[in-house]
Amino acid sequence: MLSPGPPLKNGLKTMSSRRNIRLLLEYDGSRYHGWQRQRDQLSIQQVLEESLKRLNGEEVRLIGSGRTDAGVHALGQVANFHTSGHLPLKAFRDGLNSLLPWDLAILEAAEAPPDFHARKSARAKTYEYRILNRRVRSPLHHRYGWWLAAALDLEAMAAAAAALPGKHDFSAFRASGSGNLNPVRQVLAARWQPHPGGWLRFTVTATGFLRGMVRSLVGTMVEIGRGKDSPAKLAELLLSGQRHLAGPTAPPQGLYLVEVFYGNERL
Amino acid sequence: MLSPGPPLKNGLKTMSSRRNIRLLLEYDGSRYHGWQRQRDQLSIQQVLEESLKRLNGEEVRLIGSGRTDAGVHALGQVANFHTSGHLPLKAFRDGLNSLLPWDLAILEAAEAPPDFHARKSARAKTYEYRILNRRVRSPLHHRYGWWLAAALDLEAMAAAAAALPGKHDFSAFRASGSGNLNPVRQVLAARWQPHPGGWLRFTVTATGFLRGMVRSLVGTMVEIGRGKDSPAKLAELLLSGQRHLAGPTAPPQGLYLVEVFYGNERL
Repeated sequence: MLSPGPPLKNGLKTMSSRRNIRLLLEYDGSRYHGWQRQRDQLSIQQVLEESLKRLNGEEVRLIGSGRTDAGVHALGQVANFHTSGHLPLKAFRDGLNSLLPWDLAILEAAEAPPDFHARKSARAKTYEYRILNRRVRSPLHHRYGWWLAAALDLEAMAAAAAALPGKHDFSAFRASGSGNLNPVRQVLAARWQPHPGGWLRFTVTATGFLRGMVRSLVGTMVEIGRGKDSPAKLAELLLSGQRHLAGPTAPPQGLYLVEVFYGNERL
Repeated sequence: MLSPGPPLKNGLKTMSSRRNIRLLLEYDGSRYHGWQRQRDQLSIQQVLEESLKRLNGEEVRLIGSGRTDAGVHALGQVANFHTSGHLPLKAFRDGLNSLLPWDLAILEAAEAPPDFHARKSARAKTYEYRILNRRVRSPLHHRYGWWLAAALDLEAMAAAAAALPGKHDFSAFRASGSGNLNPVRQVLAARWQPHPGGWLRFTVTATGFLRGMVRSLVGTMVEIGRGKDSPAKLAELLLSGQRHLAGPTAPPQGLYLVEVFYGNERL
């Protein structure tokens, strides 16, 4: 008979044997009150945690790379959780997908290093905002873009966006009541591109985003595109820090969290 | 005082003063039991006719270019109706759009010649079928394509589709119980094309389609793409006329009525 090993010290062995699972997620945010758990309203986090419990038999706390607001979509949200369960990775993708509703899906499940934290380890994120600029609204894209019938000057919008790369105080572009966080963020890239069928897409990569920042930037750039303001307005707003001077906030259904960057990717 | 004109003969003047309005429509078919009015279920025709009555104050009968089945979408369905109302064309687009639910929209409204008939005047139609071929289902495209995880051999599917152009008896590719109509149809073009993100699109133009024909053809070609049948199977089925030998019917949410051709377009 084998002798038992030395006694565990402070549960260390138990701790280190817990797995850290990283998930890559796509979702249609239309039905949800955003990523984060809420007391009375359906959140993406809640549905995922409940499905994980059914799959794994264990309460888990899912850590997202960040919140997405009600109605906002994700092509590549990242989340992680710790588990002492022994299910194969495939179960955390295919098994979980069979339990999840149609509007949430796991694209990938992977083992992550013990210290990987979907929010704290994130180096940058890319968001995309989609505008459908044509005379008539589109039934097939109703939940997936912001329909605007007014003519938009894409060059003026691109000129405004050129002020974004770099470190700025984004106080003028945060959701009202979003707290006292440091409002300085570093934008790595920002551009507008036309796509077939009347689409305009704004893609922005930054080391971090304030709540409501992308939608507020888009709302301001749309005012510029409609000729109500000059392209210089955006740079002036960055300097002013005055939220009430910025344009209206673009609606959530045009916004997509595209990618979250961690250690190794080239940005 | 002006003398009255000659008495109307057989109401001819009244008839010819009625306008014939042609509508171009986009719709998301997910919520509907297809185009055609049904006793107990919501149809696209019913919602359009009810909205036209609210707008125009007059009962109208809308003539569609053809039925689309439950769950099938349209990028360019065509319909027409006769009216003695005097509303400007803009009202039949923008006014109607403001009354219609989010999943139906009028893209264009135009005056048509008195003898224009959306179904009888149609010379050809183009349908598109969209397959999402990737490992994991897509929340953002759940209602807008057929998700297939199995590897598909696009070359084999294209080779099968090459048998389609020309006049054929499509008895093997019609919905069961779809009547005794002449099953011969002329296909003008048919092809598969890959699109970014794992999409495969089948586009087919024909002078007419049997009920269920595109979805049945796609179901058969998918069996060929999966290697269960050889590309020659499709041509054999055309010759056999045996419905029970064809593949399963592809689901409706991947099918789009793209365009209806009338007098003047080049096909």
